[in-house]
Amino acid sequence: MSGCPYFEKRHFKRNLDGSQAGVNNASRGGIIYGDYLQLDKILSAQVLQSEIKSNKIHDEHLFIVTHQAYELWFKQILFELDSVREIFISGHVRDERNMLKVNTRIHRVVMIFRLLVDQFAVLETMTALDFFDFREYLSPASGFQSLQFRILENKIGVPDNQRVPYNRRHYRDNFTGHDSEMLLATEQEPTLLKLVEEWLERTPGLEVDGFNFWEKLQINIFNRLNQEREKMEKMPESEEKEEVMAELVKQRELFTSLFDEKRHDHLVSKGERRLSYKALQGALMIYFYREEPRFQVPFQLLTSLMDIDTLMTKWRYNHVCMVHRMIGSKAGTGGSSGYQYLRSTVSDRYKVFVDLFNLATFLVPRHWVPKLNPNVHTFLYTAECCDSSYCSSEDSD
Amino acid sequence: MSGCPYFEKRHFKRNLDGSQAGVNNASRGGIIYGDYLQLDKILSAQVLQSEIKSNKIHDEHLFIVTHQAYELWFKQILFELDSVREIFISGHVRDERNMLKVNTRIHRVVMIFRLLVDQFAVLETMTALDFFDFREYLSPASGFQSLQFRILENKIGVPDNQRVPYNRRHYRDNFTGHDSEMLLATEQEPTLLKLVEEWLERTPGLEVDGFNFWEKLQINIFNRLNQEREKMEKMPESEEKEEVMAELVKQRELFTSLFDEKRHDHLVSKGERRLSYKALQGALMIYFYREEPRFQVPFQLLTSLMDIDTLMTKWRYNHVCMVHRMIGSKAGTGGSSGYQYLRSTVSDRYKVFVDLFNLATFLVPRHWVPKLNPNVHTFLYTAECCDSSYCSSEDSD
Amino acid sequence: MSGCPYFEKRHFKRNLDGSQAGVNNASRGGIIYGDYLQLDKILSAQVLQSEIKSNKIHDEHLFIVTHQAYELWFKQILFELDSVREIFISGHVRDERNMLKVNTRIHRVVMIFRLLVDQFAVLETMTALDFFDFREYLSPASGFQSLQFRILENKIGVPDNQRVPYNRRHYRDNFTGHDSEMLLATEQEPTLLKLVEEWLERTPGLEVDGFNFWEKLQINIFNRLNQEREKMEKMPESEEKEEVMAELVKQRELFTSLFDEKRHDHLVSKGERRLSYKALQGALMIYFYREEPRFQVPFQLLTSLMDIDTLMTKWRYNHVCMVHRMIGSKAGTGGSSGYQYLRSTVSDRYKVFVDLFNLATFLVPRHWVPKLNPNVHTFLYTAECCDSSYCSSEDSD
Amino acid sequence: MSGCPYFEKRHFKRNLDGSQAGVNNASRGGIIYGDYLQLDKILSAQVLQSEIKSNKIHDEHLFIVTHQAYELWFKQILFELDSVREIFISGHVRDERNMLKVNTRIHRVVMIFRLLVDQFAVLETMTALDFFDFREYLSPASGFQSLQFRILENKIGVPDNQRVPYNRRHYRDNFTGHDSEMLLATEQEPTLLKLVEEWLERTPGLEVDGFNFWEKLQINIFNRLNQEREKMEKMPESEEKEEVMAELVKQRELFTSLFDEKRHDHLVSKGERRLSYKALQGALMIYFYREEPRFQVPFQLLTSLMDIDTLMTKWRYNHVCMVHRMIGSKAGTGGSSGYQYLRSTVSDRYKVFVDLFNLATFLVPRHWVPKLNPNVHTFLYTAECCDSSYCSSEDSD
Repeated sequence: MSGCPYFEKRHFKRNLDGSQAGVNNASRGGIIYGDYLQLDKILSAQVLQSEIKSNKIHDEHLFIVTHQAYELWFKQILFELDSVREIFISGHVRDERNMLKVNTRIHRVVMIFRLLVDQFAVLETMTALDFFDFREYLSPASGFQSLQFRILENKIGVPDNQRVPYNRRHYRDNFTGHDSEMLLATEQEPTLLKLVEEWLERTPGLEVDGFNFWEKLQINIFNRLNQEREKMEKMPESEEKEEVMAELVKQRELFTSLFDEKRHDHLVSKGERRLSYKALQGALMIYFYREEPRFQVPFQLLTSLMDIDTLMTKWRYNHVCMVHRMIGSKAGTGGSSGYQYLRSTVSDRYKVFVDLFNLATFLVPRHWVPKLNPNVHTFLYTAECCDSSYCSSEDSD
Repeated sequence: MSGCPYFEKRHFKRNLDGSQAGVNNASRGGIIYGDYLQLDKILSAQVLQSEIKSNKIHDEHLFIVTHQAYELWFKQILFELDSVREIFISGHVRDERNMLKVNTRIHRVVMIFRLLVDQFAVLETMTALDFFDFREYLSPASGFQSLQFRILENKIGVPDNQRVPYNRRHYRDNFTGHDSEMLLATEQEPTLLKLVEEWLERTPGLEVDGFNFWEKLQINIFNRLNQEREKMEKMPESEEKEEVMAELVKQRELFTSLFDEKRHDHLVSKGERRLSYKALQGALMIYFYREEPRFQVPFQLLTSLMDIDTLMTKWRYNHVCMVHRMIGSKAGTGGSSGYQYLRSTVSDRYKVFVDLFNLATFLVPRHWVPKLNPNVHTFLYTAECCDSSYCSSEDSD
Repeated sequence: MSGCPYFEKRHFKRNLDGSQAGVNNASRGGIIYGDYLQLDKILSAQVLQSEIKSNKIHDEHLFIVTHQAYELWFKQILFELDSVREIFISGHVRDERNMLKVNTRIHRVVMIFRLLVDQFAVLETMTALDFFDFREYLSPASGFQSLQFRILENKIGVPDNQRVPYNRRHYRDNFTGHDSEMLLATEQEPTLLKLVEEWLERTPGLEVDGFNFWEKLQINIFNRLNQEREKMEKMPESEEKEEVMAELVKQRELFTSLFDEKRHDHLVSKGERRLSYKALQGALMIYFYREEPRFQVPFQLLTSLMDIDTLMTKWRYNHVCMVHRMIGSKAGTGGSSGYQYLRSTVSDRYKVFVDLFNLATFLVPRHWVPKLNPNVHTFLYTAECCDSSYCSSEDSD
Repeated sequence: MSGCPYFEKRHFKRNLDGSQAGVNNASRGGIIYGDYLQLDKILSAQVLQSEIKSNKIHDEHLFIVTHQAYELWFKQILFELDSVREIFISGHVRDERNMLKVNTRIHRVVMIFRLLVDQFAVLETMTALDFFDFREYLSPASGFQSLQFRILENKIGVPDNQRVPYNRRHYRDNFTGHDSEMLLATEQEPTLLKLVEEWLERTPGLEVDGFNFWEKLQINIFNRLNQEREKMEKMPESEEKEEVMAELVKQRELFTSLFDEKRHDHLVSKGERRLSYKALQGALMIYFYREEPRFQVPFQLLTSLMDIDTLMTKWRYNHVCMVHRMIGSKAGTGGSSGYQYLRSTVSDRYKVFVDLFNLATFLVPRHWVPKLNPNVHTFLYTAECCDSSYCSSEDSD
């Protein structure tokens, strides 16, 4: 029946519904549920160290299953992330038909992280005392050795130099051999941050010989600020006048800083900003014109990227809370404790898309935003549509 | 160091925190994270049928991982359930120190089911169209073939004769060989329902030659009803009087039915009630005296058992909603559809502890409940304390 | 400062952050938190009937607050729904820039419903026994009298003739005076279903004198089915051949039914379908071409509409579960119980966008879908772009 | 009918189910849904400042409703908290029958906080740009002015001297008049922390002339440590021996610190510990003997208190994440930003029951814990049972 996928689909449809035709079909070479999911591997992987050491502790089973569930979902996140990165790397992202795919998959990562944050509620049914009964047997296994989580951080774009060192050792020292090499490799591959940055730099409307958004915006803002100053200067002298004049000075400084490329590059060098100057312009342009049909899905994407950052940091914080409960906050009698270390990673240093959050500082009223003229409007709407051959829309998987 | 678990615990504590001492310790024979969790098995079990058939469909990966996560958690639920059943079967439940354990583990099952209900939100990021692209390759794999879910139903106590048949076939026909035998075995083991029933039958206070709760309750209720009737009869004739008198007749019928053992047994034979007459009395006694120290944790347990029933049925309903979205409601062009079948399982027939819900119909005001006299009060509080040797409190795992 | 909103924004920014400048600013005519939220009204609205009757029951407070929280969120849902309906009614939906707004607001309704489903977990901390202690005082208040929930059902599009009657009485009989009139009015206003239907009927590509999607699809499908038949007929006689031929007959019947307008209208008249024949075509077109930039956001919208339906029905089911726990399943001693009634409303009869689910029955492989030629592709992409004047994108609020 | 609450209950039962008898009953003096919930107040309290300023911004409605929902739930939390505090203050907590009530209500607070954390997902459907459109109109309203939240902190036990000051101003400076006085009053009332502390100090088994848990524990631990040292000293000289000996020294220091009352009081004076020395002993005793029937519910209570701490801090962190998204991390051009301030409150300084977490540092293997002899066991089990008159179990509301 391989010539007619449709009928087999019909078969499966019956089967998802629960058709008992299963046995017969299986004999024709189909696959059954347990084999499909390789449950022999999945369900035989719970070996309690406490049982091996002849002191079976009930709650170790939960500890294992919870961590395995985390790792399963980390694998799914990496799978989605790699597929999205591939769409960017291959250039398929230039065909806007692929934006739905990018957006859907990034949104899926958001939904998975939301589940992972909720999942702590299950492990929290184990008390510190239950944990104490078997934690001796785990030595030296440590969550620090989760290869997938480190790969995930690298692929999204947590930079090596932003990581908080623990006891002056490099995070990669927790790994050896192939794992260590794999980590090094992921540090060198294009990160999601980098790929999004390049994509933002190509935002239509930024062209200096075209709509030239950045210059128009700068002119508008400073014109408005000047108008405000003129109005203020006409106010009678008063405490209030002084205050608003002082506020105006601050506003001017704020926006002067926005348009100061050197300052931007300095902040990047310190790690306080992550996106290139041009990419930042692209992001702000998408923010301001998010209702343009062409920017609707890109705007959703930027929002989802912030969601991922937020959820990863919430995950970290939930993790910290659990560790606090399980082992307390103090290192034995010396040195800084793991709890303190983990707490320090709940930091904006680990927020990859921190610039997207901080752009909120630079919002302006809608009527300060440069108007699109009808031509530009159409341009924004159709750009890259014509030069994308239909054939390039193939699924990149 | 095997003589001193405590120090190794200290080691692990450092390691959970993220100590990089790991590598050294590992060389002394410890275990590392990935090996501990058997990630080689867990993370290599995602084989896409669509890829095997040379038409890799991205979303099949999510489909696999989601189902694997469900099966992992089903295993954990079964592990908790078996440990609780063992405490009941072995009689350890008679040592009240074990009630904390029973209660905590049943509560953990509740928390896991809550996660499993939420988990549908992740799979729902896949649309019917994404699913259509690979569902042909899954034939004849079917969720109906989840052995663990059927075992779970059996062990909790879904009776064979309450199952909705699908296309006139028995649920066990989806399984062969060892799996089928295992299912048959779990049908014959004591279910959680049965074990809870036996435990409820032993509720202190039910003894006919002791406090004799049931008789006292019956007397109280009918005395009160008679008092009400006398008061009503003194009312002047009116429409309202007729109404309340009619209501009184209904109340009397309701409570007459509660104390009618034959009627109870008849309802049991029809499957409308599940607990024995005596167990029902025990449950109602725990309800009414739930604040007695001895009954506080038993009351929590009854509440958690209802939570499990409710969540399993919510799980079923969420599943139905997802199937509706993925394949629509109609069978191809004939026969009843799987959607309709699944829908029919979202039914009180599948609520194992349905009696605990329905007891809400038989509540009475606090002052109708028989008073404990101080002796009985102490009795309730200390019974079985003295005859439980301290040694029997060992963990039954 | 009213001439310079920006500075006041700056002020507020400090204040959201927690600036203690508040008091000073307030004296300049600003508004403080408690007044802004009218907390005098919100926080004085918890009057316990049990307390009035001199028998204060603690848990009644939770009962009140929970229901008030539901009503607050229902108001928010209605606010979003009305704004979306207004965009459709006014025709602003034709300017595709408004699709982001429509989509975002419908998605917000989804997020609120998700919260409302979770919110039952709070009320479930009250047991049947706690509830029994005060439920007498509530008579005859009933959730059936939630005006907002009925309005919500009406505005989304639950039709009067699909409602399950309770004890042979009309749902509107629970209301009197202004409330009853308001309900009648909402029955007559354009529902979200109706507005979406009209919008789907205008889906570009449906034009008979244009791309003519429906005819092309019909031709493609039957060509494919014929090709399959020819291939099958060449198979040697066998049981398998008979099976696949029988399956083919069913497929042909299925798709014949899809293209049978009379049958469609018949199903509509029976309430089994809700969308017009043309709207159904539009929906299927959006499904199949969802990756076209123009259809990406519309596709998200259709998905969110299904989410709302699903969540409303999950809300109903969670409600049923809670009622079961609080009062049992049986009516006193006669008549059908409220529990049974509520259970009957967890039905596809109450799924407004049921057609969007059921279209999953009519999916076909990607290569059966009519190809867009480059012209049509561009057409799809730019249609209505040029004739929408920029000015029409004003916010319709 | 006032003499027979039961029948009225029956009435309401029908009405919760949705009986249409409502109208008739209402005419007999009952109450209907909308009046009961005072929906006229609740649903008329959404006044948009932007609309008043003639620039209605759609998303302000969500902003208002979300904050009102938060305040409603804060009121419920305060209601539960006050009732629990009253049980402690009045001494009713000494009747152990009241522990179910205490435990259930504290657990309810946990469930509400869980909802409140989830509730951010709704507000996050508003983007920074949506917020910018109306935030100017809110000045100077600020979440810092939430009276209920400050009262909540005070009543649980956030001490004034642990609060992070913002711009060198006292938190009470945000309030005036009656509100300010009320805050001052709540600072002086017994906090939940204080009440729990007193209760823990009375833990049976701590009596110096009785079981004397603390001394027994100290002897046991140091005996065990000495045994370990003796075993170690017999090891051949090696690097490993040195390590474990060093570890032993640290263990001894750790436990020496536990039994050092002066050090404890010093930590209390610095705010690093919050419970008295005796209360700490009680908590550890409940931890170690949690399976004793008498300690099962107290142990659950301690766990729930940690849940509240954890959830309040998660609430703070989720709030921080939202503020970051809405307004960015930077103060205009000077001063520390509100974001930075809020971030600093996500701190263990705000964890009221921090000692309960940190006790995890002092766990020991089960066989190090002093054995209960049968007499003590019974003692633990029945203490205060006999001297609690049954009559004192009246509901304290």
